[in-house]
Amino acid sequence: MRNFSFYNPTKIHFGEGQIAKLSREIPAGSRVLVTHGGGSIFQNGVWAQVEAALAGYSISRFGGIEANPQFDTLVRAVEQGKAEQCDFILAVGGGSVIDGSKFIAAALCYAGEPLDLLTGTRVQAALPLGCVLTLAATGSESNPHGVVTHVARQEKLGFSSALLYPRFAILDPRTTFSLPTRQIGNGVVDAFVHTIEQYLTFPVDAPLQDRYAESLLQTLIEEGPKALAAPEDYNVRANLMWCATQALNGLLGCGVPQDWATHMIGHELTALYHLDHAQTLAVVLPALLAERRDSKRAKLLQYAARVWQIEQGDEEQRIDAAIAATRTFFQRMGVPTSLSEHGLGAEVIPHVLAQLERHKMVTLGEQRDIDLAVSERILLRAL
Amino acid sequence: MRNFSFYNPTKIHFGEGQIAKLSREIPAGSRVLVTHGGGSIFQNGVWAQVEAALAGYSISRFGGIEANPQFDTLVRAVEQGKAEQCDFILAVGGGSVIDGSKFIAAALCYAGEPLDLLTGTRVQAALPLGCVLTLAATGSESNPHGVVTHVARQEKLGFSSALLYPRFAILDPRTTFSLPTRQIGNGVVDAFVHTIEQYLTFPVDAPLQDRYAESLLQTLIEEGPKALAAPEDYNVRANLMWCATQALNGLLGCGVPQDWATHMIGHELTALYHLDHAQTLAVVLPALLAERRDSKRAKLLQYAARVWQIEQGDEEQRIDAAIAATRTFFQRMGVPTSLSEHGLGAEVIPHVLAQLERHKMVTLGEQRDIDLAVSERILLRAL
Repeated sequence: MRNFSFYNPTKIHFGEGQIAKLSREIPAGSRVLVTHGGGSIFQNGVWAQVEAALAGYSISRFGGIEANPQFDTLVRAVEQGKAEQCDFILAVGGGSVIDGSKFIAAALCYAGEPLDLLTGTRVQAALPLGCVLTLAATGSESNPHGVVTHVARQEKLGFSSALLYPRFAILDPRTTFSLPTRQIGNGVVDAFVHTIEQYLTFPVDAPLQDRYAESLLQTLIEEGPKALAAPEDYNVRANLMWCATQALNGLLGCGVPQDWATHMIGHELTALYHLDHAQTLAVVLPALLAERRDSKRAKLLQYAARVWQIEQGDEEQRIDAAIAATRTFFQRMGVPTSLSEHGLGAEVIPHVLAQLERHKMVTLGEQRDIDLAVSERILLRAL
Repeated sequence: MRNFSFYNPTKIHFGEGQIAKLSREIPAGSRVLVTHGGGSIFQNGVWAQVEAALAGYSISRFGGIEANPQFDTLVRAVEQGKAEQCDFILAVGGGSVIDGSKFIAAALCYAGEPLDLLTGTRVQAALPLGCVLTLAATGSESNPHGVVTHVARQEKLGFSSALLYPRFAILDPRTTFSLPTRQIGNGVVDAFVHTIEQYLTFPVDAPLQDRYAESLLQTLIEEGPKALAAPEDYNVRANLMWCATQALNGLLGCGVPQDWATHMIGHELTALYHLDHAQTLAVVLPALLAERRDSKRAKLLQYAARVWQIEQGDEEQRIDAAIAATRTFFQRMGVPTSLSEHGLGAEVIPHVLAQLERHKMVTLGEQRDIDLAVSERILLRAL
């Protein structure tokens, strides 16, 4: 096992009815900037619960944060928060709203150009942030990371700071009952790939971490299809919600190598061609596993045996079967696994590679050896 | 899944050499009360590392905190900390030192009688506490709980407060190389039973929590015997250390029923007859599982299949085999599984029951239906 540090101070309140705890968690007298996405929270009862719980607080509401939250939108939220002298941010939504709200929380404490915070300037202060999660996917509700899209630059820009851990996260599975099928499928794929990126590398004698990851993968495989078939099954939604949080709260990656190349290549596909984040992961991951079968061999065989119960055949056959099973699972969740299904062909590859080069993403993967040539081969396999 | 809240703000620094990070975690200028147990830290190099890392701090050292830390000893530490105006506690040791130091941290901020804090008075303030863990067992390094022994009252008194989470915990597996066999065996049994108490109850459709628990049990079963055979195998000690922390940091119990009857009955055996904490667990748990086979049936069968790969035989046979395997594992770790091996016979049972009654431990277990009659049957099975 490798050395590591682990820290995650986000308080989780999980279950139905927990939105009422907002008033326990937000200091009395706070001026709360409530951020959200489109209008779904007004239809599904979430806003009514939030509003009831926030009776007595001064509230400024900012809606319209889009999937892959855009810098320009967030800057408007920062201006509103400044004008209203907000001192607490409450994000009500999924990973995009929460990621965006982390940026808002930092930018409201930063005197310079907000863009600095996405281009290397360290976050030195941030307003306290809480969230009401309405979509199980990214894990942003309990981690210190965010990604913001800069449309003009065609870039997805990541940032991270221990100051950006949400103070609390309220996870009520009922808030996800009304989600469209596409968002459920995307969420399951996102959590699955987060787990894989911290698991499917090479062995370092860390059996507990391996088993935790396998626990998540097996549970997502079991529960994911049920969520599509029975949208109002509380336990299924609860299990997916807890899986998604666990998949990217820092625990799985303790003491083990991590990959994240699938995410980096995927980010470019979203920035250039506007695929959903999870759609990019479902396209890239199987291709990457096939391309990296040698350096990931030991873990691929373990994944085949323990996650998919694939015991028949020689090593190559078992690896092929595990990759095929992964692909089939994503498809079953309604998420395509090839670029062509998104109408993209080989013509996009040079553009993606140019973006990777521009963003210095030329030593990706757990071995830091996924250079542009390897990324190209991965993209070719993803067609 | 049941509703739950989860919060664990302890920062973990894991791995060899991490003791040097003390100076990063303890505020400059602190007056540090360093607490420890017997003199082993002077022999095994731990103290030298701690002292080097604390150069520049004002230090007051208090040694001699015993296994099952005693109230009278801790009160002396409180007096020393008060006299020296300490404002930070650093516990260097295992669960007993850390539990005791949590009490010290609270008592140093309490104007009344320290005993109040063990008899129902809520902790309202506590000095910040950090720890250097030297024994993988209790999980105290990353939870808000403590147990203190009051010798004159023949009682083990528990306490808990979110204010008592260690600010940080340094886990260097090398610090455990020189531990006696008995402490390694005890530590593995302790972590194993912590896991079981949060797992082996009844199903509530929480598959991730189940699998996390099974991950811990399987890893302890694999790594435990290796730790006895190869005391200086770094990875084995690292894996055990991470398992023990995970087994009682609050994660496993999220959203599921919990038992803890084994601990409550075991505490009385320690208070009355001075068995090691883990020795009591190894005696009580198999007896309790046998006695509770009906109410725990579904989970016992799952435990048999998933943890011990027991698939043959009818339900009763599989349950018997799983309990026998548990017993054999504890024995393999050098920890006896019957009272008679500790020289105790049926004559102790009335005394244990009287203590349970005195401590109002008359509705134990996940169903709150382990009354004194059931506890008696468990103890009879434990002879």
